[in-house]
Amino acid sequence: MTPQDLRFRLATRTDLPAIVRMLADDDLGRQREHDENPLPAAYHLAFEQIESDPNHELIVAEQDGEVIGTLHLMFLPSISFQGGLRAQVESVRVDKRFQNQAIGSKMMKWAIERAKQRGAHVVQLTTHKSREDAHRFYERLGFKGSHLGMKLSLK
Amino acid sequence: MTPQDLRFRLATRTDLPAIVRMLADDDLGRQREHDENPLPAAYHLAFEQIESDPNHELIVAEQDGEVIGTLHLMFLPSISFQGGLRAQVESVRVDKRFQNQAIGSKMMKWAIERAKQRGAHVVQLTTHKSREDAHRFYERLGFKGSHLGMKLSLK
Repeated sequence: MTPQDLRFRLATRTDLPAIVRMLADDDLGRQREHDENPLPAAYHLAFEQIESDPNHELIVAEQDGEVIGTLHLMFLPSISFQGGLRAQVESVRVDKRFQNQAIGSKMMKWAIERAKQRGAHVVQLTTHKSREDAHRFYERLGFKGSHLGMKLSLK
Repeated sequence: MTPQDLRFRLATRTDLPAIVRMLADDDLGRQREHDENPLPAAYHLAFEQIESDPNHELIVAEQDGEVIGTLHLMFLPSISFQGGLRAQVESVRVDKRFQNQAIGSKMMKWAIERAKQRGAHVVQLTTHKSREDAHRFYERLGFKGSHLGMKLSLK
């Protein structure tokens, strides 16, 4: 498998089942998602909002015509940092059948280059405190774990 | 001072100097911002992007006609959590002359209610690991510090 085999593109609506399947395919995801056929309408509504907003790029990584990874890259205008643009990465997933092949690393490197292209001054993300493997993964890519990520659930 | 005296509204362009002044008024902010008169054009460009995007609400808190606090509330559509909407808070500041009057707390409570109104399932934010006072402040509001916030500077 050579790196050239991995292609990145904006997701289309037909990719949505593959994306939800990857989001649902771990312990936390199984509780959060409804990976059903047909997909619940809420997924389609969210896809439409993301697709119509140029500050959101829902990305899929494709290999031999098959979607095997996804990430959601968003660009956040801000007054701080002299009106600086932030890039934020959410919902990074690699199909379990293709893990340990450096696909996540290629995906993140692609996202970092894309953030530079669009003029962002920072790429930011949060990852669960318990996921020390993920912390090391992002540190190898140059990220610094300088912040505490805090969440308030409203549901 | 009664809570009724504090009013919240969307920022207008004429609030921009007050917002930048608050962002610049600490050790980190002083290095990041250019609080000059007239303000550098980049601040105005960012303001225009934020103002024209209904998923961004740049908020000011006003007391007796004076802007004494600001926060940037953003709504992020997502495929995860069944197409769930996230609210994110950035750039929270209270004018130093008005600190220790629970204004930050009122601002955050307002932001949380606003996030509920718009149907968000979570409010998320990051705060520097070293700011233990801020962690306790957000914990009192119900936030859990479950995540590590990682950043990669591109400049």
